[in-house]
Amino acid sequence: MAAPTTPLLKDELDIVIPTIRNLDFLEMWRPFFQPYHLIIVQDGDPAKVIKVPEGFDYELYNRNDVNRILGPKASCISFKDSACRCFGYMVSKKKYIYTIDDDCFVAKDPSGKDINALEQHIKNLLSPSTPFFFNTLYDPYREGADFVRGYPFSLREGAPTAVSHGLWLNIPDYDAPTQLVKPRERNNRYVDAVLTIPKGTLFPMCGMNLAFDRELIGPAMYFGLMGDGQPIGRYDDMWAGWCTKVITDHLSLGIKTGLPYIWHSKASNPFVNLKKEYNGIFWQEELIPFFQSVTLSKEATTVQKCYLELAKQVRAKLGKVDGYFNKLADAMVTWIEAWDELNPPKGAITTTNGPALKSK
Amino acid sequence: MAAPTTPLLKDELDIVIPTIRNLDFLEMWRPFFQPYHLIIVQDGDPAKVIKVPEGFDYELYNRNDVNRILGPKASCISFKDSACRCFGYMVSKKKYIYTIDDDCFVAKDPSGKDINALEQHIKNLLSPSTPFFFNTLYDPYREGADFVRGYPFSLREGAPTAVSHGLWLNIPDYDAPTQLVKPRERNNRYVDAVLTIPKGTLFPMCGMNLAFDRELIGPAMYFGLMGDGQPIGRYDDMWAGWCTKVITDHLSLGIKTGLPYIWHSKASNPFVNLKKEYNGIFWQEELIPFFQSVTLSKEATTVQKCYLELAKQVRAKLGKVDGYFNKLADAMVTWIEAWDELNPPKGAITTTNGPALKSK
Repeated sequence: MAAPTTPLLKDELDIVIPTIRNLDFLEMWRPFFQPYHLIIVQDGDPAKVIKVPEGFDYELYNRNDVNRILGPKASCISFKDSACRCFGYMVSKKKYIYTIDDDCFVAKDPSGKDINALEQHIKNLLSPSTPFFFNTLYDPYREGADFVRGYPFSLREGAPTAVSHGLWLNIPDYDAPTQLVKPRERNNRYVDAVLTIPKGTLFPMCGMNLAFDRELIGPAMYFGLMGDGQPIGRYDDMWAGWCTKVITDHLSLGIKTGLPYIWHSKASNPFVNLKKEYNGIFWQEELIPFFQSVTLSKEATTVQKCYLELAKQVRAKLGKVDGYFNKLADAMVTWIEAWDELNPPKGAITTTNGPALKSK
Repeated sequence: MAAPTTPLLKDELDIVIPTIRNLDFLEMWRPFFQPYHLIIVQDGDPAKVIKVPEGFDYELYNRNDVNRILGPKASCISFKDSACRCFGYMVSKKKYIYTIDDDCFVAKDPSGKDINALEQHIKNLLSPSTPFFFNTLYDPYREGADFVRGYPFSLREGAPTAVSHGLWLNIPDYDAPTQLVKPRERNNRYVDAVLTIPKGTLFPMCGMNLAFDRELIGPAMYFGLMGDGQPIGRYDDMWAGWCTKVITDHLSLGIKTGLPYIWHSKASNPFVNLKKEYNGIFWQEELIPFFQSVTLSKEATTVQKCYLELAKQVRAKLGKVDGYFNKLADAMVTWIEAWDELNPPKGAITTTNGPALKSK
């Protein structure tokens, strides 16, 4: 396994991992992750100790830390669910975040070479997106590609890329019903493409292998209220994706999907998943039309302002679908308050009770 | 070169070729094209004779035939330009059309196998599209793929596919300025994907390697007024693509792009292309906002009705960009009249002066 020659953006990117049950995970990623700082947000019992192998630079938060740092605002962070990872986005001080699940390993490209997922995400984030018009040869900024005949010249500058959504070889990210129906399906197709999700189009954003620009879109990456005490699970990343897409569209930012692949090693239990998902599957039929038709005002010029407008509309329009959405709308507001507390505008005076980190 | 095992839709598909300057072209495609009927529309001097090799089932039209069959309505068909190919769409009596340029040869997939482009187009057309929501694992109807977690179940039936837009290895379909700037760029990237262009998103439709369902969208596939006597060229397929996309969106039909690839053997002359394109490059900056904002009425329930509404708006809104668009709007109306004359509604009495074909 060859280490990457240049650890790109070493001082500008944090890797956020919801929890690590499997220490092979870090060993496998060592050549690629060791140059970076890790933020681990433990989703289960705080008494359990996660042993991080030697040589990694990391900080680790468990539920007690979340409670201590956020106080009453900790209510917006999910408990006993990997959705808690968004706490890591909030405490990071870096420009970029890469988040990955602990059952995702290094994949190989068709030539058999290990894929440096982070390097590809960084390439995706550092080159523009093309949300306003579709390019049939995929990402026109990639080496060996360009805009095709008929692509308007005025749109060739593109838009800043806020999100890079990577994919998965081996176990595809299927919902419980599809898992149940196709238990043996594996994704073996390596599609050598990166493309921009067009403006006005929603997509299912998966949090397994995801990078984003915190400065451009961070406050929209709230993973909602899932898991312990909530009527829904496995919609944390979806919720974040719908909110993020609506806001990036409003702010003329781009989202890319495609490369890089990771190797998703194991499927989660479809019976457990069905229990977590069934409300989501049902509610989603109302959520999609909501997100497809939602509009943000001209005054919504920052991600925070967009997000608070969205929270208001969630309460007004989705509260009648289920009382859960009123709670979620409250949590969305709390999330923004907590975000702004931990990320005061540049130049503002910072308070002294910021996060005290458990660092190595 | 292995012939396809099953010549799919043999009696339901015509292959339309604008002209054939290069007889290697048909020899190369023989194993794949010979089972099908060809319609050749000669774009140049009617006196020149195109020799079609033995064994092909074809009909050939030159300008004299177009004039004879359409009478005064022949004015809507471009002269001395490959845009004349759309006459072939009109005289066909089949459900599906595949159109290809004579400098497009059989490409090889990464395993070195000849690609049966027609077979892939037919697969694309016979399976639904997903214009209403983006699937991150590309075409969910493809073997080994499905809808990912978070894809609304109510949208999994998809929409009928009206168009299959194939791509090109070797010489990419670049405009003249890009050709001039990157004379040596070749497309060597085989992207193993088919995807739906989302609703509300325009794309640059290239006519080099294109299949469509005539019954679903045929009358929108008008390639405009290009070439001899016109101030613009190389925008024939683009124009058809923008009109088609707006109409498929309105009628809830889908357009797929990606596989299959053909091998585009030679780049056209960039200096000649620049002369043809420069008005288009300029006008396009007005055309794209027009097509992005155009709306069709509830009464527009057929492709013809949609197209006539579009023609009206072209006149009203683009006539002021250049007088050419008034002429084009007239031609759009003529095209629909001619289409309906040659393709009377089923059950209607047909006249006797339909096309007299020069068949082999």
